[in-house]
Amino acid sequence: MSRAIAGPEIERLIQLLSKLPGLGPRSARRAALHLVKKREALLGPLAEAMAVAKERIIVCSNCGNVDTSDPCSLCRDPRREDALIVVVADIGDLWALERSGAVPGRYHVLGGVLSALDGIRPEHLSFDQLVTRASDPAVKEVILALSATVDGQTTAHFITELLAHLPLKVTKLAHGVPVGGELDYLDDGTLAAAIRQRTGF
Amino acid sequence: MSRAIAGPEIERLIQLLSKLPGLGPRSARRAALHLVKKREALLGPLAEAMAVAKERIIVCSNCGNVDTSDPCSLCRDPRREDALIVVVADIGDLWALERSGAVPGRYHVLGGVLSALDGIRPEHLSFDQLVTRASDPAVKEVILALSATVDGQTTAHFITELLAHLPLKVTKLAHGVPVGGELDYLDDGTLAAAIRQRTGF
Repeated sequence: MSRAIAGPEIERLIQLLSKLPGLGPRSARRAALHLVKKREALLGPLAEAMAVAKERIIVCSNCGNVDTSDPCSLCRDPRREDALIVVVADIGDLWALERSGAVPGRYHVLGGVLSALDGIRPEHLSFDQLVTRASDPAVKEVILALSATVDGQTTAHFITELLAHLPLKVTKLAHGVPVGGELDYLDDGTLAAAIRQRTGF
Repeated sequence: MSRAIAGPEIERLIQLLSKLPGLGPRSARRAALHLVKKREALLGPLAEAMAVAKERIIVCSNCGNVDTSDPCSLCRDPRREDALIVVVADIGDLWALERSGAVPGRYHVLGGVLSALDGIRPEHLSFDQLVTRASDPAVKEVILALSATVDGQTTAHFITELLAHLPLKVTKLAHGVPVGGELDYLDDGTLAAAIRQRTGF
């Protein structure tokens, strides 16, 4: 809506930057200005990094992760257990779990969760691929690492039924007190779950 | 600090994105993920827009603005008054004033304000260039559009003395109530200034 102030090249940059999550029109302008000021140190390298990513990044046809190879490095890693598949909604969730270093197995990225409101139906998510993968006799457990939201839990139930006929264990993430979290700030549902699922000391 | 999760191409993208103002490590990761998901619609165009900007944007040797030509389009615009120079600290301030559409004249971008704390001394800012430009007999007024901070006002005083020997008017922006602003939320200094500088109704 704003008048073009800074020439078409910068306006185009601002317009595209404002499509990034976390950047509105105003912060996109600040970011563009910062880039223009740091042409050598930041704008050039970032343009190149983006071109490289655009060129080389592909989606893994097995698990839905993004990488420069297909199958991705996680699917090819021989140190990972084939017996375990961790189902996540999104690549960001996969990254978060990988940072935790707590997953010794493989992943399966659904590409979202079922949502009546957003019109996300089963055919939009990679359920068929998941069933095919889980049907491999090597797979012993599927962990549903989905958000504890209504849509996330609906999706988890849907998957549970899809996999019901297979001889494997379907599990979900524990609810409870975040590590380092203060009880005082937790909601009732989390506290109740943490009490119900208490463990030995 | 985080382990490399997503391959060197994406990690590099995240690392560079996190240097943008307004994006921390976490939001840079979100932005990178968004870009990777929208490779065709956003990542490609943004990489290209950045490469174009990197290639074509230069600093105007006359006023310090950034543009694809030197002198910049504002300095070349024949509809603008040569009699007026508006002094701003930063290109972002120039953009803000241009959006307001209230400046019929030229600009001069200092490149910052004097700051003892940040070690910004007169030789770091384009004062010499300003004096040269203001010495042109065509120039009748210099508006100091600098922030109402200690450093901004120090800089304004410094410029006033630099230009004291020239036959021109040196003015500054009015203090007062922001348009659409509620009195209740304004600080005492602004209210006092708004009363002192009250205008006829």
